[in-house]
Amino acid sequence: MIRKLTNVYRAENAYNAYNKLLSSHGTLKLSTKKFSSLSNSNNRQNFFNSSLRPIHQYMRLNFSSRFASTNVDEFITRRKRRRRLIFFSTFVIIGTALLVELDYRTSESQAKEQEEKTIRLCTRKGGPKGLVIAEHFTDEKDYENTAKRPRLVILGSGWGAISLIKGLDKKKYHVTIISPQNYFLFTPLLPSATVGTLEARSLLEPVRSIIKGVDAHYVEAKATDVVFDEKLVEVTSGDDPNTSFYIPYDKLVIAVGSESITHGIEGIEHCHTLKSINDARLIRKKIMDNFEKATLPTTSPEERKRLLSFVVCGGGVEFAAEIYDFLTEDVVKYFPTVLRNEVQVSIIQSSDHILNTYDEKISDFAEKKFKRDHINVITNARVQKVESDHLVYKMKNEQDSKNLDYGLCLWSTGIAMNPLTKAISNKLPEQQNKRALVTDSRLRLKGIQDSSVYAIGDCSTIENPNLVQGLMKFFNDADLDKNGQLTYDEFAVLATKIARKYPLTANHLKRAHELFDRYDVDKSGTLELDELRFMLEEIDKKFTSLPATAQVANQQGKYLGKKLNQLVIAAETSILPSSRDYSEDSDSNCPDTDDKLAPFEYAHLGSMAYIGNAAVADFGMGWTWMGGLSAVYLWRSVYFSEQVSLRTRVLLAFDWTKRSLFGRDISKF
Amino acid sequence: MIRKLTNVYRAENAYNAYNKLLSSHGTLKLSTKKFSSLSNSNNRQNFFNSSLRPIHQYMRLNFSSRFASTNVDEFITRRKRRRRLIFFSTFVIIGTALLVELDYRTSESQAKEQEEKTIRLCTRKGGPKGLVIAEHFTDEKDYENTAKRPRLVILGSGWGAISLIKGLDKKKYHVTIISPQNYFLFTPLLPSATVGTLEARSLLEPVRSIIKGVDAHYVEAKATDVVFDEKLVEVTSGDDPNTSFYIPYDKLVIAVGSESITHGIEGIEHCHTLKSINDARLIRKKIMDNFEKATLPTTSPEERKRLLSFVVCGGGVEFAAEIYDFLTEDVVKYFPTVLRNEVQVSIIQSSDHILNTYDEKISDFAEKKFKRDHINVITNARVQKVESDHLVYKMKNEQDSKNLDYGLCLWSTGIAMNPLTKAISNKLPEQQNKRALVTDSRLRLKGIQDSSVYAIGDCSTIENPNLVQGLMKFFNDADLDKNGQLTYDEFAVLATKIARKYPLTANHLKRAHELFDRYDVDKSGTLELDELRFMLEEIDKKFTSLPATAQVANQQGKYLGKKLNQLVIAAETSILPSSRDYSEDSDSNCPDTDDKLAPFEYAHLGSMAYIGNAAVADFGMGWTWMGGLSAVYLWRSVYFSEQVSLRTRVLLAFDWTKRSLFGRDISKF
Repeated sequence: MIRKLTNVYRAENAYNAYNKLLSSHGTLKLSTKKFSSLSNSNNRQNFFNSSLRPIHQYMRLNFSSRFASTNVDEFITRRKRRRRLIFFSTFVIIGTALLVELDYRTSESQAKEQEEKTIRLCTRKGGPKGLVIAEHFTDEKDYENTAKRPRLVILGSGWGAISLIKGLDKKKYHVTIISPQNYFLFTPLLPSATVGTLEARSLLEPVRSIIKGVDAHYVEAKATDVVFDEKLVEVTSGDDPNTSFYIPYDKLVIAVGSESITHGIEGIEHCHTLKSINDARLIRKKIMDNFEKATLPTTSPEERKRLLSFVVCGGGVEFAAEIYDFLTEDVVKYFPTVLRNEVQVSIIQSSDHILNTYDEKISDFAEKKFKRDHINVITNARVQKVESDHLVYKMKNEQDSKNLDYGLCLWSTGIAMNPLTKAISNKLPEQQNKRALVTDSRLRLKGIQDSSVYAIGDCSTIENPNLVQGLMKFFNDADLDKNGQLTYDEFAVLATKIARKYPLTANHLKRAHELFDRYDVDKSGTLELDELRFMLEEIDKKFTSLPATAQVANQQGKYLGKKLNQLVIAAETSILPSSRDYSEDSDSNCPDTDDKLAPFEYAHLGSMAYIGNAAVADFGMGWTWMGGLSAVYLWRSVYFSEQVSLRTRVLLAFDWTKRSLFGRDISKF
Repeated sequence: MIRKLTNVYRAENAYNAYNKLLSSHGTLKLSTKKFSSLSNSNNRQNFFNSSLRPIHQYMRLNFSSRFASTNVDEFITRRKRRRRLIFFSTFVIIGTALLVELDYRTSESQAKEQEEKTIRLCTRKGGPKGLVIAEHFTDEKDYENTAKRPRLVILGSGWGAISLIKGLDKKKYHVTIISPQNYFLFTPLLPSATVGTLEARSLLEPVRSIIKGVDAHYVEAKATDVVFDEKLVEVTSGDDPNTSFYIPYDKLVIAVGSESITHGIEGIEHCHTLKSINDARLIRKKIMDNFEKATLPTTSPEERKRLLSFVVCGGGVEFAAEIYDFLTEDVVKYFPTVLRNEVQVSIIQSSDHILNTYDEKISDFAEKKFKRDHINVITNARVQKVESDHLVYKMKNEQDSKNLDYGLCLWSTGIAMNPLTKAISNKLPEQQNKRALVTDSRLRLKGIQDSSVYAIGDCSTIENPNLVQGLMKFFNDADLDKNGQLTYDEFAVLATKIARKYPLTANHLKRAHELFDRYDVDKSGTLELDELRFMLEEIDKKFTSLPATAQVANQQGKYLGKKLNQLVIAAETSILPSSRDYSEDSDSNCPDTDDKLAPFEYAHLGSMAYIGNAAVADFGMGWTWMGGLSAVYLWRSVYFSEQVSLRTRVLLAFDWTKRSLFGRDISKF
C-alpha cells in the first residue's frame, strides 16, 4: 500500500518537474489527461527513463564541469555548453512530447481495439437457455495468455470468497468474482454499526480494491443457476431476467453465504434481521425513530414503554450489549430522563443459557453482567408468534404463553438457504440437507464427480462421515490377520486412518488407548465387530457440523486457495506439491489430483463476544478470558488484526476514538 | 467540551476509586446503575464532597503523623489510629450508600412525578380540530419557571434555524424546535457526499446536541399547518394524521426551507435532486451502480456510453466537478480502462455562462478549466423534456431540439414551496408570491399584524419595496418648502431615509450626488416629481431579492436571534436595547418594540465554488480568487471554520485526509 502511494507520489513529482522543465523552455505542456493515459506503470517508467534520465545526466555533467573550470577564458566554452544544453534539452523535450503523443494514440487505439474485441468475443450464445456466454471481460488486458489459464469462478464476496482470493497465487487462474454486493463486509462487527459505535463504511472493503493484487475480474451480478454439464454459471444483473447471461468456469467455488430464516414462525417478517449493512442501517434508523417517537409529548406511557422495548430473539447478545451501551452512554445525554427508566432490552433464548456454545463460566459471567445491567434474559423460552407490536412466547415448563411488547425485534437465530443454493440442491440428488450444500471433506460439492465445484462458508456443510455405514469395510481392512477381532495395534492404525479421512472426527479418536479400553466391554483385550459398531455409533452421535461462523469460512477459503494453487502446479509440473498422497483417504473410485491432496481440517481458535463494556473469549479446552476493559481491548485488537486492509484498520481506529471523544451520532437517516 | 470530558473522566475515576475503597473493606458496592442515577452533576459533586473528602483529609492526617512519629512507642497509637480509620471510613461508606440509595429513590420518584405531570398537562384539547395541545414536553425540568417564559417555536433545523438557536440567550424563551429531520445538514458540502469525498455523517450535527446549550426542546415531527388566530402549530409525526397535535407559540419562526422543483417540465421526476442527505446517498449508489453495470461484459457500447453520461441541469457545477474528480482519481484505479474513455460529464445551463452569478473572470476561468477537463458545458440551452434515458433540449438560437442520453441526471435549478409554506401562503391574502413567503424588512411574515411570526431562509423572501408606490408620500415628506421641487439637500435626506427603510435598496442609493445629477434630466438643479418617479422606477427594476443561499439564511438567523433576545430585554426592562429608534422606517401604523429595532441588512461576504482540484471565490466588488491547490485550501478552510461543532470539524478533516490516503470508497450500498 505504502509502496504504491510512494510510487504515485514519485510519479507525480516527476510529472511536475517535467512540466516545469517544459514550461521554462517555453514549449508545449504535457496535460494531465495525456499523462494519466500513461496509466500502465511500465509505460511511465519507460517514459521517464527515456526522457528524464538523459537530462539528468547531462545536467550533472554540466554542473561538475562548471565548477571544475576556474579559468576566466573558459567562460566562452561555458556559454557554448549552455547553448548546447538548451539545444539538447529542446531536442529531448520535443522527442518525448512526440513519444508521449504517440503513446497516447497507441493506448487510445489499444483501448478501442480491446473494446471491439470484447464486443466480438461476447456474442457467442449457448447453454440450455441460449444466452450470451461472457468469455471475456471489459478489463482483460491480455487475451491470449488469460485464455490459456483455467477459469476459476467464485460466487460471493464474503469471508470464504475473500480469504480464498487473498490466498490465490497471481496469474495461476483466470479469476472471476460474481457477487451482487461489491464489497466485503466485516460481519463480526456488524452489531456495532446498528447504534453508530462504528460507521457502516468502516466495515466495508470494496472487492475491486481487494482483487487488485490478483488480477481478477469482478462482475456485480447475482448468480441464479449453475449448468453443471456445460460448466456455465447463469448470472443476472438487476431484477430484469432479460439481462441474464452465462459465465463459463473450469473450477467453481460457491461461497454465497446464507439467509436469515424468514419463515416457519407466524409474523416473523415483522422482525429485523442483521446480515447485511443495509439491515444495520435500517435498525439504526428504527432505534432513533423509536427514541424520537417516545419523546413526543403526546405519546402515552404505555406506548413509550413499548417503543423502548428492544427484543432479541436468539443469540444476538452483542446487539443487546450495543443497545445497552448506547442507552447508558448517549441517550441519557440527549434524551429526556423519563426515557431512561423505560428502556428495556430483552433476550429470548430457547436453550437454558445465553452464549450456550461457550464455556459455562462465560455464560455465567455474561448472564451476571446482563443482570447487573438490567437486561432481561429469558432463557428456555420459545417464540410462538410475532405480531406487529408484540410477540408471544412460551416457557419450556409452563403451559400458558406470555406476551412481550416490542418496539424493535431482532431475529438472530437460524440460517436458511438462499435461492441459488436451493436451486443447486434441488438439481443434485446427492444433496439432501435442507439447510446447506453438502461437501466432502475436501470441500467438493457432493454430486459433482470431476472436482470442479467447491462450496465453502455458511452456504455449505461438510458431510457427516456416518462411520457406522463403513463399519464392515473398516473392520475388514483393519483386521489384518482376519481373525474377526481387532488387537490394540490394529485398532490404533484404524483410528488414525479414520481421523485422517474425516478430520472432523479426529477429536473423538484422539486417545486411542482410552477408547479401546472403554469399548472393549468384555475386557477380552480385543475389539469385536459389535464393540466397534457401538464405538462408531457413539462417535457419529457426538459429531456436530461446523458452526456457520466467519472463522470457519475464513479457514475454508484459505485451505481452498492453497489447494487451487497446488492443483495448477501439479497440472503444470506433474509433481504433487504435497508431503504425501492422501488419496487413500478419499472415497473416490478414480482419485484425481484433488484426492491426493489433504482434506480440510478446522482448527478452532476460539470465540469472542462483546457484552457491553466487557467482553468474553473462549479459546477452547477450558481456556477463557472475560472481564472489562482489558477483555474489550483484546476483543478489539483481535478484530483489528483480522481486517482485510490498512484502510479499514485506520477507519476502525478512528471510529473507536471518535466514539470515546464525541459519543455516537444520533442523527437519523 | 473538553471541560465536560474531564469532568466525566474525573467522576469516573472517583467512582472507580470509591468502588475499590468499598470492595477493599468488604462492604457493599455501588452499582453503575445507581451511580448513573446521580445524573445531576451537582448531586455527584455533593456526593463526593460528603463521602470522599473526609476520607481524604483523614488519610492525609494519618499519613503525615505516621512520618512524624519516629518513636517506637507510638506504634500502638498508630494501630489505634488505623482502627479509627477503618471505623470512620466504614461509617462514611455506609452513610453515603444510604444517601445514594435515598437519592436514587428520590430521583426515581421525581421521574415518576414528572411523567405524571407530563401526562396530566398534555390532555388539554383545543384548536379548530380539537387536537391535544402539547404545552409541556417530556424533558421539561422546571414547569413553573418555564411556563412564565414566552414560547418560541422554530420550524426547521437548517441554516436559519440553527444560527438563530446558536444566537439565542439561554433562559430567555421556552424554545421548541420542530423538524422532521433530527440533524443540521451542512448543505454547501453536499456535492462532496455524492461520490464519497466526504462521508454523509460528517456533514450532520444532531439537533439535540446543538440545543444542549440553550435548554430547548426538540420535537421530531412535521409542521403541517399554523392556526394564526389561536397561535397554534399543527404538527404530525409520521404519516398517520391521527397522531397530529398542536404546539402553542408566542413567537413563531418559519425556517422550513424549500423543495426542489418537481413539476413544470415533462418527466422531471426521472431526475435526481440534491437537497437532503438521502438524495446524496441515492446519487452515490446510482453512480456506483452505473459504473458496475457499464463494466458487465454483456453491456453494449451504446448502453455503456449512456450509463456513463452524467448530466447536470442548472447550476450544479460542484457536482460535475466532484464526478470528474472521482473519475480521474478513483475510477481509473479500479475500473477497466475502456470505461475511462466513455465517461462524459455535461452541464446544461440556460444562461450564457456557468457560475453566472459570479464575476465574469470567474466564469471564464471555470469554463476554461472544465473544457480542459473535457466536461461538456452546454450554455444557452433549455431542457424541454426528460425521458427515462435521455433528455431533450433546445439551444436558444436554434430551431431543432437535441437529444442527450444520460445515465444519471441531476436537476439543480429552481426551488419550490413545500406543503407547509404553500398552506400558509394560501391562508393569508397578503401572500401573493408563488415561490416563497413574503416578509417585511424585519423578517416578519406579511399578513400577521402582531409581530408574532417570522420567516427566514430559503422559504422566505423579503418584500420588494416597490418605491414607486410610495412616490407621493416620499416627495411630499421630502419637499420641506413645498415648492414642488427637491433640492439636492432635500433629496439626500430622502435617499438616506429610503435606504434605512429598505436596506436592500441601499446599494442603489449610495452615491446621492451622482444619482441626483443623472436623473435631473432638465439640469434645473432640482428634482421634479416626474424625475423622481423615473429614478424610483429604475431602482425598482434593479432590485433583486436575496438568493436562496446558506449565507443569507445564516445571517437572517443571526439577526433574528439577536432581535429576539432584545425583545425580551425590552419587555422586561422597558428599555430599548438599540442605539436608536427605527420605528420611523416602519410601515406599521402602531409600531411595537420590533418596529423600533433595526431591519435586516444583508452583507454579502462572497461566494465560493469548488470546480475539481481548483476553486473560485468571488468576494464582490471585483475581488476574486481562483486557482488550484491554494484556492481549494481556502475553500476548505472557509467551510471548515463555518462548521457548527468540533465534532464535524474533526470528521471533515479526517475525511479529507482519508481521501488523500486511500481514495474514495467505491462500495455500493
